[in-house]
Parts: sequence; structure tokens; C-alpha cells
Amino acid sequence: MAVLGTAAVEALIPVAALIGIAFAVVQWYVVSRVPVRSRDDGDDDDDDARGKRMLGGVGGSEVEEEDEEDGVDGRAAEARCAEIQQAISVGATSFLLTEYRYLAAFTAAFAAVIFVFLGSVRRFSPRPEPCAYDPSRECRPALANAAFSAVAFLLGALTSVLSGYLGMRVATFANARAALEARHGVGRAFAVAFRSGAAMGFLLASSALLVLYAAVNLFGLYYGDDWGGLYESITGYGLGGSSVALFGRVGGGIYTKAADVGADLVGKVERNIPEDDPRNPAVIADNVGDNVGDIAGMGSDLFGSYAESSCAALFVASISSFGTEHDFAAMMYPLLVSAVGILVCVVTTLVATDVAVVGEDDAAAVGPALKRQILISTVLMTGGVAGVTFLALPKEFTLFDFGHVKVVKNWHMFICVDAGLWAVLVIGYITEYFTSNAYGPVRSVARSCRTGAATNVIFGLAVGYKSVIVPILAIATAIYASFRLAAMYGVAMAALGMLSTIATGLAIDAYGPISDNAGGIAEMAGMPRHVRDRTDALDAAGNTTAAIGKGFAIGSAALVSLALFGAFVSRAGISTVDVLSPRVFVGLLAGAMLPYWFSAMTMRAVGSAALRMVEEVRRQFDEIPGLAEGRVGARPDYATCVRISTDASLRKMVAPGALVMLSPLVVGTLFGVETLAGLLAGALVSGVQVAISASNSGGAWDNAKKYIEAGASEEARSLGPKGSEAHKAAVIGDTIGDPLKDTSGPSLNILIKLMAVESLVFAPFFAAHGGIIFNHL
Amino acid sequence: MAVLGTAAVEALIPVAALIGIAFAVVQWYVVSRVPVRSRDDGDDDDDDARGKRMLGGVGGSEVEEEDEEDGVDGRAAEARCAEIQQAISVGATSFLLTEYRYLAAFTAAFAAVIFVFLGSVRRFSPRPEPCAYDPSRECRPALANAAFSAVAFLLGALTSVLSGYLGMRVATFANARAALEARHGVGRAFAVAFRSGAAMGFLLASSALLVLYAAVNLFGLYYGDDWGGLYESITGYGLGGSSVALFGRVGGGIYTKAADVGADLVGKVERNIPEDDPRNPAVIADNVGDNVGDIAGMGSDLFGSYAESSCAALFVASISSFGTEHDFAAMMYPLLVSAVGILVCVVTTLVATDVAVVGEDDAAAVGPALKRQILISTVLMTGGVAGVTFLALPKEFTLFDFGHVKVVKNWHMFICVDAGLWAVLVIGYITEYFTSNAYGPVRSVARSCRTGAATNVIFGLAVGYKSVIVPILAIATAIYASFRLAAMYGVAMAALGMLSTIATGLAIDAYGPISDNAGGIAEMAGMPRHVRDRTDALDAAGNTTAAIGKGFAIGSAALVSLALFGAFVSRAGISTVDVLSPRVFVGLLAGAMLPYWFSAMTMRAVGSAALRMVEEVRRQFDEIPGLAEGRVGARPDYATCVRISTDASLRKMVAPGALVMLSPLVVGTLFGVETLAGLLAGALVSGVQVAISASNSGGAWDNAKKYIEAGASEEARSLGPKGSEAHKAAVIGDTIGDPLKDTSGPSLNILIKLMAVESLVFAPFFAAHGGIIFNHL
Repeated sequence: MAVLGTAAVEALIPVAALIGIAFAVVQWYVVSRVPVRSRDDGDDDDDDARGKRMLGGVGGSEVEEEDEEDGVDGRAAEARCAEIQQAISVGATSFLLTEYRYLAAFTAAFAAVIFVFLGSVRRFSPRPEPCAYDPSRECRPALANAAFSAVAFLLGALTSVLSGYLGMRVATFANARAALEARHGVGRAFAVAFRSGAAMGFLLASSALLVLYAAVNLFGLYYGDDWGGLYESITGYGLGGSSVALFGRVGGGIYTKAADVGADLVGKVERNIPEDDPRNPAVIADNVGDNVGDIAGMGSDLFGSYAESSCAALFVASISSFGTEHDFAAMMYPLLVSAVGILVCVVTTLVATDVAVVGEDDAAAVGPALKRQILISTVLMTGGVAGVTFLALPKEFTLFDFGHVKVVKNWHMFICVDAGLWAVLVIGYITEYFTSNAYGPVRSVARSCRTGAATNVIFGLAVGYKSVIVPILAIATAIYASFRLAAMYGVAMAALGMLSTIATGLAIDAYGPISDNAGGIAEMAGMPRHVRDRTDALDAAGNTTAAIGKGFAIGSAALVSLALFGAFVSRAGISTVDVLSPRVFVGLLAGAMLPYWFSAMTMRAVGSAALRMVEEVRRQFDEIPGLAEGRVGARPDYATCVRISTDASLRKMVAPGALVMLSPLVVGTLFGVETLAGLLAGALVSGVQVAISASNSGGAWDNAKKYIEAGASEEARSLGPKGSEAHKAAVIGDTIGDPLKDTSGPSLNILIKLMAVESLVFAPFFAAHGGIIFNHL
Repeated sequence: MAVLGTAAVEALIPVAALIGIAFAVVQWYVVSRVPVRSRDDGDDDDDDARGKRMLGGVGGSEVEEEDEEDGVDGRAAEARCAEIQQAISVGATSFLLTEYRYLAAFTAAFAAVIFVFLGSVRRFSPRPEPCAYDPSRECRPALANAAFSAVAFLLGALTSVLSGYLGMRVATFANARAALEARHGVGRAFAVAFRSGAAMGFLLASSALLVLYAAVNLFGLYYGDDWGGLYESITGYGLGGSSVALFGRVGGGIYTKAADVGADLVGKVERNIPEDDPRNPAVIADNVGDNVGDIAGMGSDLFGSYAESSCAALFVASISSFGTEHDFAAMMYPLLVSAVGILVCVVTTLVATDVAVVGEDDAAAVGPALKRQILISTVLMTGGVAGVTFLALPKEFTLFDFGHVKVVKNWHMFICVDAGLWAVLVIGYITEYFTSNAYGPVRSVARSCRTGAATNVIFGLAVGYKSVIVPILAIATAIYASFRLAAMYGVAMAALGMLSTIATGLAIDAYGPISDNAGGIAEMAGMPRHVRDRTDALDAAGNTTAAIGKGFAIGSAALVSLALFGAFVSRAGISTVDVLSPRVFVGLLAGAMLPYWFSAMTMRAVGSAALRMVEEVRRQFDEIPGLAEGRVGARPDYATCVRISTDASLRKMVAPGALVMLSPLVVGTLFGVETLAGLLAGALVSGVQVAISASNSGGAWDNAKKYIEAGASEEARSLGPKGSEAHKAAVIGDTIGDPLKDTSGPSLNILIKLMAVESLVFAPFFAAHGGIIFNHL
């Protein structure tokens, strides 16, 4: 048996989670000390009203009258920032609350579906059943599993909502503060943005761990020794998390890109006014979008990955020797790894906030500081994994490997977890190489703008395609090592290894949109050029970390899906998924098609919402007198643009969401578990490629544009300045990349994970009643 | 036993092939009666000199002096057409001959590789061996198989070269004739273009069948009763055909799109001169490109598909009861289906040329006439398949199905072949729906040009993604039916079913570039507007048939690859390809990545070649006095542009070619047959999607542009005319689509087929010596 006892494990996990939460609160507190005072100082409970006033298109006109102030230290700047912040916060909150209202209905309905489908497996019989892996003993009835799966589903959905919502609150709380701090220097602005990112990261990682831990213990009260049933039901938690993440990602992605594309098409291309110019009616919607898409959506997404890989690992472990021998410490190994990860990330964060602090005027230090975070957390975590592995796991144990029993040593698990941990580092660094304008690929894309938008797009697509190679090889290596050493348990643990530093990963990822928003607020509040330059420097580094964050999301999604796929196959009772069977092959082929179908829907959704936004923005410029010229008193109607984005995203997220939620149900029911297994494998191997190439093409175009705008090299200056033909071509590329990198690309992660976890949850139903059509052909 | 005797079969196949060749010659003769006389009439052997003179940038200046002639009936128009035709023909011929010189070296070297690798399996022992499927008997030595495989490879390569070259000759012979006939009416121009397409189609289909048939009989002289060895060696024929096709497609694709993109970027976008304007220095290269890319490349590609599916079917049949019982008539069933196909296509062609002739001024009849061809050939062939199936096949026979013996009835094969035949019809019609400007998708793409190039690209990508759905479901249905009924033999026969009407498919496909060239020649020769309008009408229909042709190519490629994949698995001696094995899964993941790597290379190749072309064209416009204004006597230097395209394509085809040729060798040798099997499956399921979406996005953009240009509806007129902002956005989309639809998309067909057939040929080597790395991990 292992060194760590049950009591130690029972203590360590919640303690680590609570430390994480406390750390998040401290970060939040530090950020909150930056004052954002409105004109009617102290009257804080009036915030909402103020925000709504701005969204309503009235009020705030007195701000304009003080434009002659320099805006650096004056109260006027603070007041303006407060107003804009509120407008963004109100817009984001109202969108999320509306979205969550729809999701509540969906979640309740789907929980009922889970209960009915799983309950039907044994015709809703409340009698105990022989255990699957030891028929001589009695286990809990299928009906109980159905009920607990539904409850776990609701719990997962709720935690996911919480993750997204809290992240958005933190971000909209911090954005104006970062803008205001930028008046005093890069370092202070960076500290605000980074600390708030960290607050979000730790909140999410800790609450995900805590809720899962609580669920395991509470469900355990009923299940007692029936660990098989317990961890089967727990998989509902992953499904709940991922379902909400799907709609969050898709809805948020459509929201943000409809606004962004619409704002850019009219503002930058037609009217030649700068990004985030307050005259642009879509500018508030654009900034709201960053918070509901890149913050709330990303938070839900990574929470989903975390929940799913934990569930997959727990499920597989429950049918291993841990489960049959009731070794609780070993059983909790996945949660222990995450717990240690939180502690490692605390140390890592302190390096950035208290040890190697970014200097006040050292804009160049921002990017390296963020990259260093990943490296530090990875190195520290390697040690942490070693510790927890040798303490919690017995020297040798056995796994159930599709009908065979596989003997695994504890150091094998160390390699598995580390394989994931280091693979994601490779993915992150390669993503940076292909999307940062410090390297060749983005520069070649920028150069191709010389001959117009067409060559820009051709080169950008090529860069995206090429950027797939190394990440896939890294994922394949991690999969081969972990799969070979510890079958699906190894793969699930590799995924958890990838996600063990999620708090740091999310911190540097959330940092991006916060900086982006800060820049927007600085521009809208009319702060001087040098403030905007500082937020631009933060934002440029944020673009790269956003790309790295997407690498995290997709890498973990690939591993998680495979682990869930394996768990599904176990649970569905099939022993091989042979490509040479017609049922499997047609599933594989159709599965590889789903990412395209899904992307077609999301791309079109963004395109058509953007068209409506363009029309509205044009209308306002044409109809509101003096708006285009920036005359005092001419105020755009921000609220209508916010409404267009909200409506479009809520309406258009239904079809892609339904595609993902229904495909496994339809295929499993009509064509059976083998075709469904093929479908999952096909969607996985094809979706990963589409997601990576879409994200990186988009990132490359975005930074190629920024490269030309910044004009930091001889070559860049020859392509620029803003408004040149080459720059216009670059803007077109950037706009095309928007839906690719922020809507369809990242949503595909969820597609592949969600279909797998859904199949896992419904596996008993498909095994019992599935394959209606193919059973007759 | 079946009704048809060996003698009847021995007669039917060559007779059908000879009928096809005779029919092609008749079509060619009819076309040749349209006179294309040069100024120095009758001096035909001076053609080359004339073409070279034009490419050299001198001579022909007297043509300009007669510009005042109306150009309709005058000898001047004929002379000008003759000159341009010669320039195109000389450019195309010289490119192909240069390309073939490189290919000869490659082919010889690769034939040696085949011999050495396969010979090494039994250490080059010349002793006979026990037969694989009946060890009590003696079969030919592995050394002989190695030698014959190498010979078959050379034969396949030679036939592929011949297919491409003859196609190019026919097309460059017909293009000017179609332009000249367009002076008299649409019907006559259509007849020329269609007849020459048919000439190419029948030449290719018949010679492919004839050479394969001859090879089987000649090899049979040595192999005697050892049908296993015989048909194993014959698979080299498919590999040879496909290898040449790969370089033909990639090289031709880069050539044509470098010229096209380069010409458009400067001509249409910067200088605002029409397409095919003789002032544009890249215009000859562009027209040459159509012939080496869309004609020669497409010809080699479809020949490759045909050769491979025949080889796959023969190989699988040789280890079925046909092979072990030496039932020659049944064994030749794949070739019989093709032979009947040729006869069916003769009848189909006569419908277009002699029954339902397109009227002289009935431009609207062209599209339906072409579409009708596919429908007629499919309906007739359904009957033909029934005939040959019930005559040639025994009522019941057995197949070797990965270790099991499967009993198949002859009507099962009828369903298999027809499943392929009808699936490709569905694919063709759906492709038309997504790429023709008569329907919603292209019109929505055109509408999105209103807000600029970015929305155009977003909508175009979405249309391409969406167009994948139905073809994949059609392919999946055909696969399920044929796979389930007759395992891999069924799949191979479904592929042959798809390709059985290849003569008609190629006819309507080659028709497109010929019409395109005719339009170019009409423009360059300064023919009046109404002539150009007629060729434009032909060309617009050709765009859709080109898209349908690509549907043929990709659909057959998917089925062929699967059949070859199955044959490879049989030959490599593995019984399952289980996704739940780490070796297979990493192969699957990496295989799904290869189409992206390949596309990155080809897109970049086109992009950078186009950049060089742009620079050259700009230089000429800047440096040649009076060129831009079209002053008499100012002649562009066409030859340099031709050279840029030639150099770029020859240099840049090496890397993608090497990727495809080396991947199976490297993976098989280092990681073994299971990983290679995964790689093939992954490349297949992912490549099909990339290929379809790339082709159809490109087709949609092209026709959206044409829709705006034609201005045939209220909406189209509101977007146009040429030169409007919406039209400029459409041109950008069209340019982006060029490399997608004509370089990377179609080349992917070959990627998936070629990797599969190469693996099949080298299977004994991998089985004996492969897996160096994974065997130690």
C-alpha cells in the first residue's frame, strides 16, 4: 500500500482547494485597492444605474465637456473609466444572465433525459443488481445511477456557470483598474491584469476541485462500497460542465466576434477610425464580447476539460485494483495531482507578483514574464507529481484494459502525468512561434500583405495548417507513452497533468482579454497616447498568451476525449474498435465530418450577425448627426449593438449546440455503440486539426496586423503605416481570423470532449437499446 | 460457374478498349476539320517555331496592325488564334516534357527502391516459396515479385504520363478551334469543346484498360497458376500511376495557380484590365496552366484512381475463391465492368453529339446537356452492371475477409458496384448545388461581398465546410453497403463503379479548361464581344462540371483508398486495426494531420510563386513602354512568366511529393504496420473532408464572382458591375480559392490513394522488417 493514508488524503485535497480560494481572494483584494471612482463618489450602489444609463445612450455628456483635461491624473478620467467599466459589466452580466436562463431550461430538460434514458436500461427497477465486475456481490440499482448521474450533471452545469460568471465579474472589475494603473507605468498595469487573471484561475481551479471532492464524498454516503456505481454517476459531472461550456463558448464566441467583426468592418475599413474609438457604436459590444467569450467561455471550457479528465480517470480507476481493493488514497490520485497543482501555481504566481516583478517602464519584460510562468509551473509541477505519485500510489497495481488486466508500477504514472505536462509546454511554445510577430511565420504573413488581402489569406491559411504538425506529434507522443504504460488511465492522467497547472494557465490566459479591455477603456476614456501605448504592449503579449491558452485547451481536449472514449468503450462493453469493420469505419468517416458541419454553422452565425451589426453601425453613422466627426454631444446608441450581439448569439448557438448534443444520441440509438465509437474517434482526430489550424491562422493574421501597426522594424515600417494598402489587407485577414480563432476553433475542443463524455454517460442505454437500424442491416 | 467463358472475356475487354480508342480518334478527327490556319498557310511543320517566336516576345507584330478588321471571319483572326494556340501548346509541351524528365529519374530510382525493399524480404533468394494461401503448393519467389512489381510500377507510370500528355495535346489542339467556332454559334463551339473532352476521356479510359489487361496477360505467362504473386505484382501498376499523378497534380496545380493568381493580382486588381487581356504578361502562362494542371493533372489523377481500384479489386479477388479456383471470367470482373463502362459512355456521348444537340444560340442548354450526360451514363451503366454481373460471376463465391471466409452472392456485387455509381451521382449533384450560381449558397457568398472581402471569405469557408456533409454521407452509405456485402472486394468494386463512367466524367471535366482556354484565346485574338460572351457561357458551365469532376475524383479516391487499405492490411498480415491500441491511435492522429502539412506546403508554394509572378508582371508594366496603355508594338514578355511558373512548380513539387512518398515508408519502417494502418485511416478520413471543403469553397468563390460579373439578376446587378467594391471583394475570394480548389484540394485525393497503394506494395517489407522503434518501446 502507499505511504499516504486516507485521512491525509481527506485533508490535503480540501485544504489545497481552500488555499487556492484564499489566494484568489487576496489577489482580488489587491486589485480592488486601485480606486475607480465615479463622479458621485462613494455612491457605489448606483453602479448599475450608471452603466445602464450609458447603454441607454443618454447621460455622461458632461464627460465630453472636460476633454481639455489631460486625463492622466484627473478625477475625470477615473469617472469616465468607471462609466465605461460599468457599461461593459452591465452588458456582460445581462448577456450571461439571459444565456444562463436558457441554459437552466436546457439543463433541467437534459437532466430529465439522462434520468429517463439511464433509468430505462433496467426498466426503472429499484432492485439492487449484481456488480458488473464481481457478479457475486450486490450493487446499487441502475435507477439510482440514473438519478445520481442527473444530479451530478446538474452539479457540473452549476459549477461551470459559476466558473464563467465569476471569471467575467473579476475581469470586468479589473479592466478599468488596469487602464487607470497604466497611467503610472507598465508594471503596475501588468500587476493588476495579471493578479485578476490569477484570481480567476485560482477560483476556478479550486472550486472545480472542491465541488468534485464534495460530490464524491456525498455520493459515497449512499453508494458505500459500490465504487463502480459511484464513479459512473460522477461522470455526469463532466457532462454537465461540458454542456454549459459548449453553449458558453459558442454563444460567447458568436457574441464577441459579431461585435468585433462588425465594429472593424465599418470602423477601420470604411470610416478609417481607430479600434475602440468611442464614436463606434459597436465598441461597447466588442468589449463586452471579450468578457463573455474569451473569459467566461474559456473558463467554462477549461473547467469542462478538468471535470471530464478527472471523471474519466476516476471512472477507469474504479474498475482497477484501486476500486476493487477500496484503496481510497490511490483512488483519489487524480484529485491529489490537481491539489498539488494548485499549491505549485501559488508559488509560481508569487514569482511574477513578488519576486521577478515587471519594471514600470519595461514593456518588453511582459511577454517573457508570462512565458516564464508556464515554464516555472511546469518545472515545479514535475517535482510535485513525483511527490504525490510515490506517496499516494502503491508500488504496483492493476488496471482493467479492455478485457485484459494490466500491471502498472507507480513510476509509470509519474511518466504519464509528466508526459501531459510537458507536451502542453511544447504545444504552448510552438503556438507562440507560429502566432507571435517576433518570428518568421507571422512576418511572412505580414510581408504577403504587400500584394493584397488574397495572398495574406493564402499565407495565413498555410501558417495555420503548418502549425498543426508539432502539436500533433507532441500529443501523439504523450498519448503513446501514457496509453502504452497505463492504458486509458494513463491517458486520463496525462490530460490531468496538462491541466494540473490550470490556475497559472488560466491566469495568463485571462490576462489577455483584461488587457484588451483595458486598452479599449483607455481609448474610450480619451487617455493620452502613452497610456494607450502601454496597454497596447500588454495586449500584444496577451494575444500570444491567448494563443498559448488555446493550445492548453485543445491539447487537453484531445487527451481527455481519448480517455473518455476509452471509458465509453469499456462501459459499452465492446472490446475492440476495429477500423476494418464497416460499422466503425462509417462512424469514423462521419465523425471526421462533424467538425466541418459545426464550423460551417458557427462561421455562418458570426458572418450573418456581423452583417447585421455592420448595417446598424452604418445606420448610426448615417443618421446620428455629428457622430462620424466626433462632435461633442453626438453619442452613439451602444445599447442596440449590444442587443444585436446578444440576440444573434442566443439564437445561433442553438443549432451547433444541438448538433453536438444530438449526434451521439442519434448515432448511438440508431446505429449502435460501434458506429458511435468510430464517430468519436473520427471527430477527435479530425477536430483537433481543424481547431489548431483555425486558432493559429487567426492568431497569425491578428499579429501580422499588429506587426504592421507597431512598425517596430524596417520591414514593418515599409508595410505600414495604418491605412496603407498592406495594412488594409492585414485588417481583412484579421477579420477573417476572428471567427476562426475565437468562435469555431475553440468550440471544437468542446465538441470532441462533449460528444465523448455524453457517450460515456449514455453508454449503458446504447448498449441495451442502441443500434436500431444497423441491427437490421 | 458463370455464363461468360474465358474466351468471351478474353475478347470482350480488348474489343471494348479498341472501340473506345477508335471512338476517340473519330472525335478528334471531327474536331480537326475546323481549320486553324496560320498566315503562312499549310506550312504546318512550322507550328513550333511560330509558338516559340511568340513566347520569345518577338514576331507577330503584324497581327496588331490589322486590328481594324472585325476579326469574325477574317483570316487574321484565324492566324492570331493559331499563333496563340501554338504559344500555349509550346509552353505546355515544354513544361510537361521537363516535368517528365524529372519524373523519369524519380521513377527509375523508385523502381529500384521497390525492387530492393521487396527483394530483401527473402534476402533476394531466387528459390520458389510455399504459397501464402496454400502452403502445400509452390509459388514464385519473392525476388520475382519484386522484379515484376518494379516493372508494373514503370508501366503504370508510363501509362499515366501518356494519359496526361495525350490529354494536353487534345486540349491544346481544340482550344483555338472552339474559339473560332464560337464565331458561328454556341452549339458549334460546344461541340468542339465537348468532342475533344470526349476524345481525351475515351483515350484515357481505353488505354488504361488495355495496358492493364495486357500486363495481366503478359505477367501471366511467367506466373502461370500463381495468381497470388501475379496480382500482388500488378499492384505496382497502381502505384506507378498514382506517383506520376501526384507530381502531375501538384506540379500542374502550382503552375496554373501561380500564373492565375499572379495575373489576377496585377491585372484585375491593380491595373483594372480584363481577364485574359493580351497586355498581361502572365496570360499565356495562365492558359498553359489550365492545360498542364486541369487537363494533364486531372487525367493522371483519374487514371491513378482507375488503376488503383482495379489493382485493389484484382488483389483481393486473387485470394478469394476466384483466385484459388482459377475462374478467369470472374477474376476479370473488375476489368469487364470497365469495358462495359466504355461502351455505355460511347452511347452516352452520341446523345450529346448527335441526338440532343445544343442549338446554335442556346447558351442555356449547355449546362443541362452536360449534367444530362452524367445522368444518362449512370442509368445506362446500372443496366450494364447488371448484365456483366450476372454473366461473369458465379451465383455464389467466397471472399477472404481478414481471416474469415465470407460467402457472397452475385447480386451482392451488383449492389456494390451500383452503390458507387449512384453515390458519385449524388456527390456530383450536391457539388453543383454548392458551387453553381443558380442556387442559394453561392448567392449568399456573393451577397456577403457587399460588406467586403472578409465576410466573403468567411461565408465562402462556411459554404465549403457545409458542402462536406452530404458527400460524406453518400460515401459512407456506399461504403457501408459494399463493405458489409462483400468486404474489401465490395469497396473496391464500388470504387470501380464510380469510375466505370470515367470516359464521360472526363469528357465533361476536360470540356471546362478547353472552354476556358477558348475564351482566353478569343480575348487575346481580339474577337468581338459576342464571341467572348459565347465562350463565357461555355466556361461558366465548365466551372460547374469541373467541380463535379472533382467530386468524382474525391469520391473515388475515398473508396479506392479504403479498398487499398484493406488490401494492405491483408497483405501485411494483421487481422484487426484497433483504435484502442496506442500504436494504431497515434497513427490515426498523425495521419489526420498529414493533409494539413501537405496543404501548408502547396498553399505556400502557390503563394510564393504568385508573389514572384506579381513582381515580374509589375516590372513589365513599369518597364515596357506603352504596354499598360495597349500601344501598338508594345508586347509583353510572355516567356519569362512561363519560365517563372515552370521553375516554381518543378522546384516546389518536390517537398509535398516527398512528404507523401516518404511518410508510409518512414512510418512503416520505424513504427510498423499497425501504426501505418492507423496513419492511412487517419489520412483518409481527414483528407477527404479537407479536399471537398477546399474544392467547394474555391468553386463557390469563383462562381460568386462570375455571378456578380454576369449581372443576370436584380441582386447581381446591385452588387456589380466589374470594378465595384463588391466585385473587388469577390475577386479576392476567387483568388484565395484558386490554390484551394486547383492545387491543394485535388492533390489530397492523390495523397490518400498514393499512401495506401504504396503501403500495399511495400507491405511484405514492413511486415518482415518494419517497426524498428516501436518494437523496442
